[in-house]
Amino acid sequence: MTELNYTHDAAAQSWIETGNSAGCDFPIQNLPFTVFRRVGGSEKSRCGVAIGDQILDLAALSLLSTLEGLSADAVRACCNPQLNDFFAMGPAAWRALRHTLFDLLHRDADDATRQQLQTCLVPQAQAEHSLPARIGDYTDFYTSIHHATNIGRLFRPKDPLTANFHWIPLAYHGRASSVGISGQQVRRPLGQVLPAGASVPTYGRCSQLDYELELGIFIGTGNAQGEAIPLGEVEDHVFGICLLNDWSARDIQAWESAPLGPFLAKNFATTISHWVVTMEALAPYRQPWLRGNDAPQPLPYLEHPRNRSQGAIDIQLEVWLETERHRRDGALAQRLSRTSFRHQYWTVAQMVAHHTIGGCNLQSGDLLGSGTISGPGPEEAGALMEMSQAGRRPLTLDNGEQRGFLDDGDAIVFKGWCKKPGFARIGFGELRGQISET
Amino acid sequence: MTELNYTHDAAAQSWIETGNSAGCDFPIQNLPFTVFRRVGGSEKSRCGVAIGDQILDLAALSLLSTLEGLSADAVRACCNPQLNDFFAMGPAAWRALRHTLFDLLHRDADDATRQQLQTCLVPQAQAEHSLPARIGDYTDFYTSIHHATNIGRLFRPKDPLTANFHWIPLAYHGRASSVGISGQQVRRPLGQVLPAGASVPTYGRCSQLDYELELGIFIGTGNAQGEAIPLGEVEDHVFGICLLNDWSARDIQAWESAPLGPFLAKNFATTISHWVVTMEALAPYRQPWLRGNDAPQPLPYLEHPRNRSQGAIDIQLEVWLETERHRRDGALAQRLSRTSFRHQYWTVAQMVAHHTIGGCNLQSGDLLGSGTISGPGPEEAGALMEMSQAGRRPLTLDNGEQRGFLDDGDAIVFKGWCKKPGFARIGFGELRGQISET
Repeated sequence: MTELNYTHDAAAQSWIETGNSAGCDFPIQNLPFTVFRRVGGSEKSRCGVAIGDQILDLAALSLLSTLEGLSADAVRACCNPQLNDFFAMGPAAWRALRHTLFDLLHRDADDATRQQLQTCLVPQAQAEHSLPARIGDYTDFYTSIHHATNIGRLFRPKDPLTANFHWIPLAYHGRASSVGISGQQVRRPLGQVLPAGASVPTYGRCSQLDYELELGIFIGTGNAQGEAIPLGEVEDHVFGICLLNDWSARDIQAWESAPLGPFLAKNFATTISHWVVTMEALAPYRQPWLRGNDAPQPLPYLEHPRNRSQGAIDIQLEVWLETERHRRDGALAQRLSRTSFRHQYWTVAQMVAHHTIGGCNLQSGDLLGSGTISGPGPEEAGALMEMSQAGRRPLTLDNGEQRGFLDDGDAIVFKGWCKKPGFARIGFGELRGQISET
Repeated sequence: MTELNYTHDAAAQSWIETGNSAGCDFPIQNLPFTVFRRVGGSEKSRCGVAIGDQILDLAALSLLSTLEGLSADAVRACCNPQLNDFFAMGPAAWRALRHTLFDLLHRDADDATRQQLQTCLVPQAQAEHSLPARIGDYTDFYTSIHHATNIGRLFRPKDPLTANFHWIPLAYHGRASSVGISGQQVRRPLGQVLPAGASVPTYGRCSQLDYELELGIFIGTGNAQGEAIPLGEVEDHVFGICLLNDWSARDIQAWESAPLGPFLAKNFATTISHWVVTMEALAPYRQPWLRGNDAPQPLPYLEHPRNRSQGAIDIQLEVWLETERHRRDGALAQRLSRTSFRHQYWTVAQMVAHHTIGGCNLQSGDLLGSGTISGPGPEEAGALMEMSQAGRRPLTLDNGEQRGFLDDGDAIVFKGWCKKPGFARIGFGELRGQISET
């Protein structure tokens, strides 16, 4: 895992304004990647990096003659409308480019550099984003013991967790084609549901539409089919992390899932954030991977000293709901929950190692969902399903509205950031998706 | 669905030798598509069409000036090392190119045409094949009531079918990255299994490795996210069908599958055949879609007169096992089972319509597995699991060897063809995959 270095120095400042340290997601210590173009522009999408409220356009940067060596190669790969080729270059190239950009954007950069870079800046307010990568395969994990227990209790009160939960970072394959970018309008799905007490299903609009608070993990470099990635080497294969909303149709899911798992309940849409925060930027926020005393010792392929000492990541997360009435009243959205990724039962490294242990090949740009992130407290649930007890106890919002599940017009906003004494606060930006009518 | 036309005329013959009508998979009435290049050649892979024991090289054909209009555009799209662009052109282009090739290869073609085309022929024995398309997403269905019942009886003797089977063409998302082409060596996967009677899993080599006899359905043209494909329009979106082996690690599957379905048990490898047989070539072998009297009326979105009258396809299928001992003894492989796709409980059109009903977008080149194809008889099972009663009653082969599941060195060969009085026999070629050590 990444050692701390000068790019983590909390005192470092960019010559570009990045706001006060308490509120800005994108100080010079972050430099998350995106794919974007100017709204209404005729140029192709290209890769960029956030700094303050600007995007450093890497295709524009590649035209300048200031770069050399690996960084120059890396920035050329970033002229593409996906990050896949840059991902495939591996961790030395990721690090080289990040450090080069850090130096160029640092307050110590000379005037000539600043003048050149000015021509490469695009205000974030003028950008439209697309998917950061061509996602070959999308896998969704199920690694929060609090989420699994909360959900399990609704359906199997005596035995909420399946026996394999303590042994396997459980996962299923998701749908890559319907992964969209923050700002997505999500049409309420149609499908089959089995009404309570009925023996014959009906066809109609989903009436139990939900979100799931997750993180998305982008695979940087893959593995050959038949060759597993050992746990200790996983992080050389992981590029970075974004926010992810695994929209879920609970009524469709309940009827279709036996015996093969969720299908139409999930594949109508998955939304990810604009920004991919690199594993290097996240290094200061690593924490020991701790489990309760009743947790068994993992099988050896899921065990490694570095995973014990710093497998967890303390990413703070919040879910906000903005209803049509909020917008009509000019009122602020309401926060539904907050938690941290550090509570997850399995680590990112364990997810990747397990994914490949049977020989499955990962490829640059593949996306892994962490699974719903729910913390130990009741206010830390990552899905409405948990908070409303499957709709039986609807939430009452501050404005008096009630929600068992999502209504048309509801927008769900996820926020994420890392913060720790002695280090800069870095953030993930916001992930927003809104439900539209069928 | 496709009307019969002159390309289905059993009397039509090519000027290229296609063997006797009883045995050849590739008469002029078939013209299945592939992607290939000459073994050891320096040229890029390109699309081709089988005729007799030759491949018509479509990239070479595109250099001739004989083609015009839609066929010329189509053949240009076939210069690519995947069929995706040709798929995306839609059914008018698929039909135009197939009919043009039929005319060029027909015995009535003049000498000049024959001479030109001779330069475009590559013997199949000199070709190496790659995947026919860039597969964006791979979905595996579960649509044989005989397979589902056989498997269900092993684990839930009183209630073998889940309640949703009669209502939903069940499916789960599979892994696109590990789909390989006939000839693939499949490494026996490692993974977690729960030994009988144990409460703690172990890690090791899969000891219950199995095949599943399936067909692969290639999506030609997709749909926009949120816009379902109505059942009556599905076949304009389906390009064609190949053979598919859904390799399965039964011991890993049993331990990992609750509650999210199979994952590592399936994603180490899936193998498909070299040739994609077009829906137009399959038109003569369509049959009424019949279900038993106890089957409920499907929900309206899964019901259409044409699906009733000709939703099924009578594709004959065989599974052969060739062991190391067969090869050492110079003995022939042994046939394990034979059946037909016509027994499937749900049709191809219903699979596609259901897949999109919630808004999931399909894309050109997406692959659907039909699910294991088992017929009603005991000799018609599409997986070893069914024939050996989960290994409890191993099969005894003609040479005295026994198999509960697959051994290292075992090769599984699928064959498929269509045959009907008054029409030419057309085939799928062979699909071969062999198990290698971990």
